[in-house]
Amino acid sequence: MGRESLDEFLNRARAQVDAALDRYLPRPPSSPAIVCEAMRYSVFAGGKRFRPMLTLAASDAVDRKAFESALPAACAIELIHTYSLIHDDLPAMDDDTLRRGRPTLHVVYGDGIAILAGDGLHAEAFALLARDPATDDPVVVARKLRLVQLVGDAAGPSGMVGGQAIDLQAAGQVPSHPLTLDAGSLRAMHARKTGALIRASAMCGATIAGADTAVIGALDRYAEEVGLAFQIVDDILDVEGDAASIGKTAGKDAAGAKPTYPALFGLDRSHAMAEECLARARQTLADAKLTDGHLAAIAEWVVRRKS
Amino acid sequence: MGRESLDEFLNRARAQVDAALDRYLPRPPSSPAIVCEAMRYSVFAGGKRFRPMLTLAASDAVDRKAFESALPAACAIELIHTYSLIHDDLPAMDDDTLRRGRPTLHVVYGDGIAILAGDGLHAEAFALLARDPATDDPVVVARKLRLVQLVGDAAGPSGMVGGQAIDLQAAGQVPSHPLTLDAGSLRAMHARKTGALIRASAMCGATIAGADTAVIGALDRYAEEVGLAFQIVDDILDVEGDAASIGKTAGKDAAGAKPTYPALFGLDRSHAMAEECLARARQTLADAKLTDGHLAAIAEWVVRRKS
Repeated sequence: MGRESLDEFLNRARAQVDAALDRYLPRPPSSPAIVCEAMRYSVFAGGKRFRPMLTLAASDAVDRKAFESALPAACAIELIHTYSLIHDDLPAMDDDTLRRGRPTLHVVYGDGIAILAGDGLHAEAFALLARDPATDDPVVVARKLRLVQLVGDAAGPSGMVGGQAIDLQAAGQVPSHPLTLDAGSLRAMHARKTGALIRASAMCGATIAGADTAVIGALDRYAEEVGLAFQIVDDILDVEGDAASIGKTAGKDAAGAKPTYPALFGLDRSHAMAEECLARARQTLADAKLTDGHLAAIAEWVVRRKS
Repeated sequence: MGRESLDEFLNRARAQVDAALDRYLPRPPSSPAIVCEAMRYSVFAGGKRFRPMLTLAASDAVDRKAFESALPAACAIELIHTYSLIHDDLPAMDDDTLRRGRPTLHVVYGDGIAILAGDGLHAEAFALLARDPATDDPVVVARKLRLVQLVGDAAGPSGMVGGQAIDLQAAGQVPSHPLTLDAGSLRAMHARKTGALIRASAMCGATIAGADTAVIGALDRYAEEVGLAFQIVDDILDVEGDAASIGKTAGKDAAGAKPTYPALFGLDRSHAMAEECLARARQTLADAKLTDGHLAAIAEWVVRRKS
């Protein structure tokens, strides 16, 4: 069987991820109805599933037969990502009332339930990593424990949570601890806030598929470039896009005086920086002989996307 | 060497837990200073360390040499408990400004940083379970993965998060989804909100110490009784106590119209119910031949404590 096209792979992966998320998310009466509803509202809010795609593409590049065993990790990472969006949207954080064209969770259920739904997804992600795929095989058990550590470190204070805290300080929302970001610290902030979980997405896929340390390291560097490009392009789209195509209020970053790549470097240089990330990502894949798969095409999609 | 007294055991365990928490919690520059500070503010706020004591006492009852290997799990559970207190205290939840006689975290750092510090402790707990004790021994690796699942399930939507959501509904804070608790559903709410993590505390100690399924099951039942007693006594102390001895505003539950054991059953019957839990907890230990340790004395302390 020949390789699927990128679109075929992404469509298959997205359908499998959505079906698996539906299976994995709790239902009443094992969990209270309001928490189940709220968690599902945000998980099935039309996200791009970028991180799980990266997990599945990384596992696929290492071992084409690893798809099934990588699916729980892909879903767990999407649960972590979704929880972070719910908490970031809260009035105490970015105060967003609209995401992907729909009211944010706290607008619908109130701040308390939104905090709890985020917390529920957070815990569920780790329970899922521990539970699936069900096995007593010590090799797979060791890999699963390694995923817990990768995701825990990426989501925690040195990663995503730390990045969001710096972002909050830079936005002037922590009056006792103000902070001004320059080009270097903007990159460091994003490396934590979005970069860490994107790197973990690729490393988890490679790890569960049985990659060795060198390959996991190469996928880490690839994902670092892709993550940086993803953020630069997000910032560019926020300037160039309109509310209809990106599903949130365009220009919001500028209005909130948040530092962005276009604001610091200009649009032309920002575009060029994203292309440089793409070139480095491709080179990393080539050096590690990881070109038989969809990772290069995914990096290209990240940089060239229009929404 | 004979057995330590309960006080000797608790003092030794508390000192080791506090020292380990200090080692485990991140410091700058690996994590941003504000998040490190905020996490430490709440972790070192003078908590009783009841859950980690239960973990260590359970591991000790199974294998007296298991103390060191149970310490990370004990600390991880305390991190989960601390994160839940931070989030529960938020204005969007219970809106508490004082805990253990000190301003709550969001009063000091703002709601945004408080949410993030809670999230950071939550992720760090799982990273810690995966990381420590460091080992390649497949038996211990499998036990560690089992702890991740126990804690993930206990903290998640079917456990702690679900219980807090029901509590929020019962307090009238989710106008779209109101709920009135009777005696049965009050117990079910507490079984999730505090019971699940207390049961996980004991089961994790037993699991990491290598207990078999029967012993883990007995410690689960023991901890279920202890957890219920803990909640009943908390409710009693809220009525009988004063702000000085319990470090929060006494009578707050009644003022907020929260359902409590004394409100539903009266004080005398509530006291009797706590004693019945103690009797059942002791019987469970006796039946499982787990009397050589501190678990019975801990159950007694839970029921007889005055603060």
